[in-house]
Amino acid sequence: MKKVAVVLSGCGFLDGAEITEAVSTLISLSQAGIAYDCFAPDRAQLHVVDHAKGAPADEQRNMLTEAARIARGDIAALGTLKADDYDAIVFPGGFGAAKNLTNFLEVGDAAQMYEDVESAVMPFVHAKKPVVALCAAPLILGLAAQVAGIRNAKITLGAGGEPLSEAISTWGQIHIALPVQQACADETNRFVSAPAYMYGDASPAEIFASCQAAIAALQTMLR
Amino acid sequence: MKKVAVVLSGCGFLDGAEITEAVSTLISLSQAGIAYDCFAPDRAQLHVVDHAKGAPADEQRNMLTEAARIARGDIAALGTLKADDYDAIVFPGGFGAAKNLTNFLEVGDAAQMYEDVESAVMPFVHAKKPVVALCAAPLILGLAAQVAGIRNAKITLGAGGEPLSEAISTWGQIHIALPVQQACADETNRFVSAPAYMYGDASPAEIFASCQAAIAALQTMLR
Repeated sequence: MKKVAVVLSGCGFLDGAEITEAVSTLISLSQAGIAYDCFAPDRAQLHVVDHAKGAPADEQRNMLTEAARIARGDIAALGTLKADDYDAIVFPGGFGAAKNLTNFLEVGDAAQMYEDVESAVMPFVHAKKPVVALCAAPLILGLAAQVAGIRNAKITLGAGGEPLSEAISTWGQIHIALPVQQACADETNRFVSAPAYMYGDASPAEIFASCQAAIAALQTMLR
Repeated sequence: MKKVAVVLSGCGFLDGAEITEAVSTLISLSQAGIAYDCFAPDRAQLHVVDHAKGAPADEQRNMLTEAARIARGDIAALGTLKADDYDAIVFPGGFGAAKNLTNFLEVGDAAQMYEDVESAVMPFVHAKKPVVALCAAPLILGLAAQVAGIRNAKITLGAGGEPLSEAISTWGQIHIALPVQQACADETNRFVSAPAYMYGDASPAEIFASCQAAIAALQTMLR
């Protein structure tokens, strides 16, 4: 049985992992017969957003503690992830990708992955094990490609996807515009991306289809 | 197009709404072409549980604010729900059903629905509009049946489901043992229930199937 690592960045799209994408990913993996373990950085989120008001809240939350809500407590610190134990790594989306896993929101094109994220993902890239990223999380594909010296990797962030898609181009990779329910599989670099909530008005059924397309592409790569 | 109200009780199975069930419900409704609005009580949760540690946390959280993470901000206070606007009402599960929507965890068989929950659900029961409840939330079906003077309503809480299933019997209703992927449809009283995470070891794919079965039964009732 294949086994993958799923990396969450909190619990809620405005300050962490997008919940519908995270759950759709776990359902899709489970339906495909692919085992998984969940991980999250054991660090404070960049900030906390009140999702009812859409405004910052004056509190601190830890990504691992919050992501455990999605994973029903079955989750480990990202720093403990050993790539040797897994066939692939998967990043659901949400603003957490730009706020907590990378510093893109703060510095734009000059972004870097946080150390625990880079240490987790690069062994997969170097071993040519698939890296899957949804919604805004393909930022990590672009940054990992940069670190590995890869150019012209194919990555989707939906139809427009600015400013994320522009950064992908700036970093020497190729942004492919795709509809919500279609995944972009880069066989050469073993990258899979799918737009999900880059289409902000998409229905839960469309988000589920987007995540299923990504996991189907992963399954093909793992054969 | 049919439209239903979905009631959440927070964000996380140990102190609010079960996230996989809530998301699976929204995906299933969306796939079935049933519109929905999300609601949650605008009240503090009974308590907050650190889901990584499985232990109480010393903080307070509001159900509406937390449930907004699942609903991506598109949610209203349960007190504003008007039954006339909806064809059915749906309660995903999680301990929130026993902690925040009813006081079952505190008083067992003597439990009552909180006032905003009772005011929301009873007009559906009286109008014979379907009430759907997953996992532990069928507690609400049992309590609503009591309030309405209904006896022998058929309700499932999975295979064993104690002490919840015993309470259902004590309240004069009939507990039907069912496997995870099967819904219990009581056509007479227009109740739908499905076990979901009453099977605590079920996979996300099985939970999704359980929620889909419930929404399929709802769809049949709404025809």
